[in-house]
Amino acid sequence: MPLYWVLRYTSGSGQADTESEEYDTHMQRMVDISDKGETVRIAVASGRIRLKEDTVAKLKNKEIKKGDALACAEVAAILAVKNTPDVIPMCHPVSIDAVEVEPSIEEGGVRVAVTVKSVGKTGVEMDALYGLSVALLTIWDMVKSEEKDETGNYPHTCIEEIMVEKKEKQLLMTETDIHP
Amino acid sequence: MPLYWVLRYTSGSGQADTESEEYDTHMQRMVDISDKGETVRIAVASGRIRLKEDTVAKLKNKEIKKGDALACAEVAAILAVKNTPDVIPMCHPVSIDAVEVEPSIEEGGVRVAVTVKSVGKTGVEMDALYGLSVALLTIWDMVKSEEKDETGNYPHTCIEEIMVEKKEKQLLMTETDIHP
Amino acid sequence: MPLYWVLRYTSGSGQADTESEEYDTHMQRMVDISDKGETVRIAVASGRIRLKEDTVAKLKNKEIKKGDALACAEVAAILAVKNTPDVIPMCHPVSIDAVEVEPSIEEGGVRVAVTVKSVGKTGVEMDALYGLSVALLTIWDMVKSEEKDETGNYPHTCIEEIMVEKKEKQLLMTETDIHP
Amino acid sequence: MPLYWVLRYTSGSGQADTESEEYDTHMQRMVDISDKGETVRIAVASGRIRLKEDTVAKLKNKEIKKGDALACAEVAAILAVKNTPDVIPMCHPVSIDAVEVEPSIEEGGVRVAVTVKSVGKTGVEMDALYGLSVALLTIWDMVKSEEKDETGNYPHTCIEEIMVEKKEKQLLMTETDIHP
Amino acid sequence: MPLYWVLRYTSGSGQADTESEEYDTHMQRMVDISDKGETVRIAVASGRIRLKEDTVAKLKNKEIKKGDALACAEVAAILAVKNTPDVIPMCHPVSIDAVEVEPSIEEGGVRVAVTVKSVGKTGVEMDALYGLSVALLTIWDMVKSEEKDETGNYPHTCIEEIMVEKKEKQLLMTETDIHP
Amino acid sequence: MPLYWVLRYTSGSGQADTESEEYDTHMQRMVDISDKGETVRIAVASGRIRLKEDTVAKLKNKEIKKGDALACAEVAAILAVKNTPDVIPMCHPVSIDAVEVEPSIEEGGVRVAVTVKSVGKTGVEMDALYGLSVALLTIWDMVKSEEKDETGNYPHTCIEEIMVEKKEKQLLMTETDIHP
Repeated sequence: MPLYWVLRYTSGSGQADTESEEYDTHMQRMVDISDKGETVRIAVASGRIRLKEDTVAKLKNKEIKKGDALACAEVAAILAVKNTPDVIPMCHPVSIDAVEVEPSIEEGGVRVAVTVKSVGKTGVEMDALYGLSVALLTIWDMVKSEEKDETGNYPHTCIEEIMVEKKEKQLLMTETDIHP
Repeated sequence: MPLYWVLRYTSGSGQADTESEEYDTHMQRMVDISDKGETVRIAVASGRIRLKEDTVAKLKNKEIKKGDALACAEVAAILAVKNTPDVIPMCHPVSIDAVEVEPSIEEGGVRVAVTVKSVGKTGVEMDALYGLSVALLTIWDMVKSEEKDETGNYPHTCIEEIMVEKKEKQLLMTETDIHP
Repeated sequence: MPLYWVLRYTSGSGQADTESEEYDTHMQRMVDISDKGETVRIAVASGRIRLKEDTVAKLKNKEIKKGDALACAEVAAILAVKNTPDVIPMCHPVSIDAVEVEPSIEEGGVRVAVTVKSVGKTGVEMDALYGLSVALLTIWDMVKSEEKDETGNYPHTCIEEIMVEKKEKQLLMTETDIHP
Repeated sequence: MPLYWVLRYTSGSGQADTESEEYDTHMQRMVDISDKGETVRIAVASGRIRLKEDTVAKLKNKEIKKGDALACAEVAAILAVKNTPDVIPMCHPVSIDAVEVEPSIEEGGVRVAVTVKSVGKTGVEMDALYGLSVALLTIWDMVKSEEKDETGNYPHTCIEEIMVEKKEKQLLMTETDIHP
Repeated sequence: MPLYWVLRYTSGSGQADTESEEYDTHMQRMVDISDKGETVRIAVASGRIRLKEDTVAKLKNKEIKKGDALACAEVAAILAVKNTPDVIPMCHPVSIDAVEVEPSIEEGGVRVAVTVKSVGKTGVEMDALYGLSVALLTIWDMVKSEEKDETGNYPHTCIEEIMVEKKEKQLLMTETDIHP
Repeated sequence: MPLYWVLRYTSGSGQADTESEEYDTHMQRMVDISDKGETVRIAVASGRIRLKEDTVAKLKNKEIKKGDALACAEVAAILAVKNTPDVIPMCHPVSIDAVEVEPSIEEGGVRVAVTVKSVGKTGVEMDALYGLSVALLTIWDMVKSEEKDETGNYPHTCIEEIMVEKKEKQLLMTETDIHP
């Protein structure tokens, strides 16, 4: 029974609005986390963008015309992590206590790992995955002119292997616990 | 006396900046809630949009050209609730722990109820009211071509009866309280 | 036939992905306005918030504790108008060339009219309606402590009569047309 | 030579600020598109999320607990497309004239195609790619409890094959061209 | 006479709402630019942040703990420029066709110049000034631990000399004009 | 050693990805505050905008054409404070418990002080500085037509003396502590 009707009943309004029942919706819902305790939560997401060897070489030598692609991706990803619940509809807003974005140039592309740490009631894997996606898209955007063919298409470029590498809960230890 | 001057005095800067006093402003202010304790807070807001009978029938039969109007309104409203303090200037940012958007087709329109649950220092009625407004406006937007007359105007469409149905505070009980 | 499949066919990829067809979605869609010409478009939306007589008197005398409620509502509404397509999912981004927010204190409440002017391909009634809703909600937020009863509820406060007053298209005349 | 110094010289300030030259930055830059003509631009991006067979079956039968995952992904993606230049740092703001999000359930996952149409000075492939990424992440978020193992991790879930399927420029034809 | 009343009269509703006239507001207003022609507009804003000599040396040697402060400031400023009308209430949304952020380390601090280029109906000096402010604040944030004294205060740090260096209008020349 | 690698080691994946090490990045990073305790934090930032004497007189007499500049600046600044971590890349999201914006007209300009109060793990000086910057820029925008010379330039206008006036930590005392 949806939360609204429960509230209606518990406050004694008793009589259901029968007309509204005929609409059987697969209702969207942000699940209730209000009774959950707070713990330290860490999530690491990683993925990669496949690039032309020539582009990879230019990235290594910092020869990309639009600027430092990896620095730009790091900043974009950190800003994105903090905006996850504004973009992914059912995500809860959480405190973001630390973010790290670690791009590494490898053969045939760039791999990025995003680590998010939070003290809160729900996991942060969506926040890490969203930051990671923005990092990879920003790299794509920065190397567009290197990756395009003569028709403006990208026959080679591809984002892939986006996964959650690790998710952990830890006991919350504040400064007061450590130095009482 | 405004907060800033209080701080000035308590830190002993003593001498008031007399020139600034001649501007008697009805100053905007986000009231101070820093000394309030945290409780569970629930608010339910409801309201309705008046539509043509023909549009109501199309909504029931999912024949709206732009897509599933009620599903779209639910998603838009949930995203909106999380953004309330970015839109309503003096609203405090609060944790949003649960949102439910419940549209119900009734005679002559659609009624929507939005329930917001938070653990925090201040009520969430503005958040519920804002989510509700966005839900109703999204429905309007989705049925625009059904509601417009030949001049592009809306002689019939109207949003009304936007009220706070219920506001409650509850004792905060976390998992640890329940299963110690 | 959806836009994507049309593109597939016109570019000769011929073979439909048969598996995907079994999902019959009431797909959301932002309708295509790319072939529409640009005209001047004006929309006026109006609505009102019902308030206690006492609150209305305080608004007239600028005695609201949180600050100048109507000035705050004007600013919030103008900012909101510019954000409409970020909130109402299927709204198109349009150029916003002028906005005016006109609150008027009347018996038993405040009436607000929002006028939006744009040069573009699609009407701006949703932008005016959204700005109006934010203006009325901001007024509510500014007079919360005046309107609340002892349980924190709002038995009297209500937003109503939100309508599109007028929508017009005009021929576009730029400075160059007028002073050639 | 950066734009700023060019402007300095053309306006005759002649004397360079020599001290500033010692910082050799790989400067970020939003490339100049002001002299480009406007054309109709279309981009289609597609990609997929790999899911457990069980989750795929629940998606088909609309048995996902959090709501209609695909409708939610469509709405999230359309909102995201309109926000691309707020997220991808060097992207230009463009008019978004049409968006379509087409999820299709297939063996072992969901494939999504996002089509963006714009009349403007620069391509919209980043906008389509960003909308697509948000659609796939929203599906992941909606099926989290179906995909998680007992440790809260996602050994199976993966986003992959994110590519630009097609990018096209077309001659701009407005209503006035077609019906003069 | 405000725009709304003009519209009322021209559409013949004749009878003024007399009650509303008693509220004499200094109404906020986004001025009407709908009849202005489009030209190329350029604005350059510059300003500086005063820093400790030690911090300046660390910036030069890229030894700031939080990361590359100037690259971060460039990205933040470019994103900010695109958001100006969401932050400065009466600013019009404009097309942003090029942005360049040029930090230069000088004696006793960092000077930043931001150049914005737009094709549109109104100047972009506010957009350049806002981008500049965000660049300088980002530098401050990146060197916080270097600038703070032992009480966490900043006796030395100061942002100053924020000015519009140059504002220009140019004739609009598109590719079609140049290569007909 | 970056957070990500630490996590890799502690979870025993042992083998480092050697290829990624050749990229020596000055990595951006949002520092980890998860183990900090919560205290009341207050920051006051102040600064001024230099204006023509004529403009200052018009501000005093509320004769600015675009509306009440100081009221508009107050609202813009309060909204901005709440958005600081969306704009300044490495800022942590914090609870904003009170904001006050205090403009004072003085000789040759307007001085603004912004006070931010938060209960949290990290200081709020960047939030106060950002709100202050937005207040000063909004004043500039409101008096543009008063300050411009005949070429559209601003030879006189300048934002300066942006400093952190005070930063304090206080013991957290909630209602429950005071009235047990």
